[in-house]
Amino acid sequence: MSSPEGADAARAVPDVVQDASGDRLARAASIGRGAAVLAFDVGGTDIKSALFDENGTALGLRRTPTPPAGPDMPGRLVARLRDLAAELQEQHPQIVPRAVGLVVPGIVDADAGIGVFASNLGWQDAPLRDLAGEAFGLPVAFDHDVRSASWAEHVLGGARAYSNAVVLIIGTGIAGAILVGGRPYTAGGYAGEIGHSPIAEGPQCPCGARGCLETMASAGAIARRYTEATGAVVDGAKEVIARANAGDDVAARIWNEALDALTLAIAQLTAVVAPEAVVIGGGLSRAGDALFDELHRRLAARLSFHRIPALVPAELLGNAGILGAALRAREVA
Amino acid sequence: MSSPEGADAARAVPDVVQDASGDRLARAASIGRGAAVLAFDVGGTDIKSALFDENGTALGLRRTPTPPAGPDMPGRLVARLRDLAAELQEQHPQIVPRAVGLVVPGIVDADAGIGVFASNLGWQDAPLRDLAGEAFGLPVAFDHDVRSASWAEHVLGGARAYSNAVVLIIGTGIAGAILVGGRPYTAGGYAGEIGHSPIAEGPQCPCGARGCLETMASAGAIARRYTEATGAVVDGAKEVIARANAGDDVAARIWNEALDALTLAIAQLTAVVAPEAVVIGGGLSRAGDALFDELHRRLAARLSFHRIPALVPAELLGNAGILGAALRAREVA
Repeated sequence: MSSPEGADAARAVPDVVQDASGDRLARAASIGRGAAVLAFDVGGTDIKSALFDENGTALGLRRTPTPPAGPDMPGRLVARLRDLAAELQEQHPQIVPRAVGLVVPGIVDADAGIGVFASNLGWQDAPLRDLAGEAFGLPVAFDHDVRSASWAEHVLGGARAYSNAVVLIIGTGIAGAILVGGRPYTAGGYAGEIGHSPIAEGPQCPCGARGCLETMASAGAIARRYTEATGAVVDGAKEVIARANAGDDVAARIWNEALDALTLAIAQLTAVVAPEAVVIGGGLSRAGDALFDELHRRLAARLSFHRIPALVPAELLGNAGILGAALRAREVA
Repeated sequence: MSSPEGADAARAVPDVVQDASGDRLARAASIGRGAAVLAFDVGGTDIKSALFDENGTALGLRRTPTPPAGPDMPGRLVARLRDLAAELQEQHPQIVPRAVGLVVPGIVDADAGIGVFASNLGWQDAPLRDLAGEAFGLPVAFDHDVRSASWAEHVLGGARAYSNAVVLIIGTGIAGAILVGGRPYTAGGYAGEIGHSPIAEGPQCPCGARGCLETMASAGAIARRYTEATGAVVDGAKEVIARANAGDDVAARIWNEALDALTLAIAQLTAVVAPEAVVIGGGLSRAGDALFDELHRRLAARLSFHRIPALVPAELLGNAGILGAALRAREVA
C-alpha cells in the first residue's frame, strides 16, 4: 500500500552513477534501444519523471512533489504529469515520445487501467490510464509501482538470472511483487502484498489489518519502534542498526525482532511460492551483509526440506520504478 | 510432505457414488472421453490403482498397501505397480492402455521425472518416470499427488470456476497446490507446501522445521493435541469438534487454535498469492459450515483491503489424486 522506495542513495553498483545534481537521485541505467517514451513513477510524496530517448537514456530525470490528496486527485495528478511532460519536451524538442509509462502505488488493476485504491493518494477506482491517454494523446502503459520496479529488476537488475523471483522493497513500508515464469504475477492487482501479509496477532496496522509484516520489519517501523521505546529520535533504521552494533540493548531487540519477522515472512514465501531468489531493495537493503547474511542464516536454521532462495540485493535503487515504467511504455509504443 | 487425503468417506456430491465394495473408497467420476490409461496414486500407506477406459470411467479402482520403505524402494514400487497393472489387464483384456499416470507425495520434480524426496517412502532423487517407462513400455506422466489432485479439482471439481486458486488438502497432514492462470505452479516441485509454511515459533514439526501450519491445524494434529492434553483417545478431529460443540473447554481451545492457524495461513496466501478461491478437501473439510463459515468470518475480521478468496469445498474426495493422474496420462497418451 505504501510507496516505500524512499530517497535511495546511490552506491557502487554496476550501471548506476550518482546524479551530479546533489539530490541523491541516482541516474538511471539505460533501458536499451527502442522508441522514445515518457515515464512517470508516482509516489505518495513525489513524482519521478523522465524522457527516455531512443538509446534508452533517461533525460531530465527528476523528482517533484505529488499534488496533495483531495477532490479530483486523478484529474489534478494527470494535469501535473502533462506539465512535467511539457517541460521535458521544451528541453528536448528533438525527442518525440511515442508512448507514456505511468506507475502508481496501492491496489492497481493494470489490465483494466484502474487505480483501485491508494490510501496516500486518496483515490478509488480511478481510470488513470484513460485519463492519461486523453491528456497525452499517446498510448499509455499503466502498472503498479513495485511490480514495475520488480520488472525492471528482472530485465535490467538483480533479478536478471531468475524467472521465479520475489522482489521486496523495504523502506517506509514493505512492498512486494512476484515474478512467475519471467512474468509479473498480479491476480488482478492483489498479489504480492507481502508487507500486508499478517505474521502475528499484532500490532494493529494502519491498513486496518493486524500483525502485518511492515508493522515490525520495515525501515520505518524499526525507527518508529525504537523511538516509541526510548523517546530518542533516530535517523532511520540505519541508526538503530548502528546503535544495536554499539551495544544498545533496546536497539538490538528491535533489530532482532525485525530480522525474525522478515525471516518468518521469507520462510512462508519459500514454502508456498518457492522463488529461486528474493531480491531485496529499498532503504533497509543498504544494511548489506548485516541483513543478507543474517536472513540467510536464520532461514536455514528455521526451515528443513525447503529450497532456500538466493537473497539478492536489488541493483536499480530508487529508479527501478521509473525504469519499469519506461520498459512498460516501450511495450505499447 | 505427508499424503493427507486419508480414507475419505463418500458423501452426497455430484458425480461421486459410494463404492459397493464397502471399503469406503468413492468411485471416481468420469474423466471424459479419450485414450485408455493406467493411473496410480501412491501414498505412504496405500496405492490407489485403476484402468480408465475410453469413456473415462475408472475400472477396477482399488486401494492396496504400499510396499514398506527400504532398499531399492523405487524398484520395488514400480514392480508392484506392474503387478497391479497385470491384474487390471487380466480383468479387462479388451481395454488397451496407451499411457500411465503416476503421482507420488513429497518433493517432486515433475519436469525431470524425479521423486526428489519423500520421508514416508524413503527415496531421494528417484528417477520414477524412467523406471515406470521401462517397466510398462508406455509413455508415463509423472506428478505430485496433491498438485495432481488440485488439477483434477480444477478440471472436474471444486476449482472449475477459478483459474487462480489454491487447493488445500487437510487430513493427517496439510498439503497444498497452487493454480496460476489455470495451470499448476510448481517451482521445480517446491511450491505449495502450505502445510510446512511456518506460522509461529513452535511446535517442532517432524519435517525438521518449527511452527509449520500442519503441527496445529491438520486433522491429525487436532486429534493428537487433544489426546496429549487430556489423555483421551478420540476418533479423529471430528470427535474433537463434536466435543467442542458439546461444551468441552479443552476441545474448544484446540479447535479454536486450529481455526486461528488456518485463518492466519489463508490470510497470508490472500495477501501474497491472492487466489480467487481456496478449495479445501481432506478429512477436515467434512466439518462443513463449522469450518468454512468460521474461516470466512475470521478472515474478514483479520484483513482489510485484501481480496478475500471464496472458500470452496473440494468435490472429488479421496479420488482427486488418481483422477489427476489419469488426466495427466491422457496428456502423454
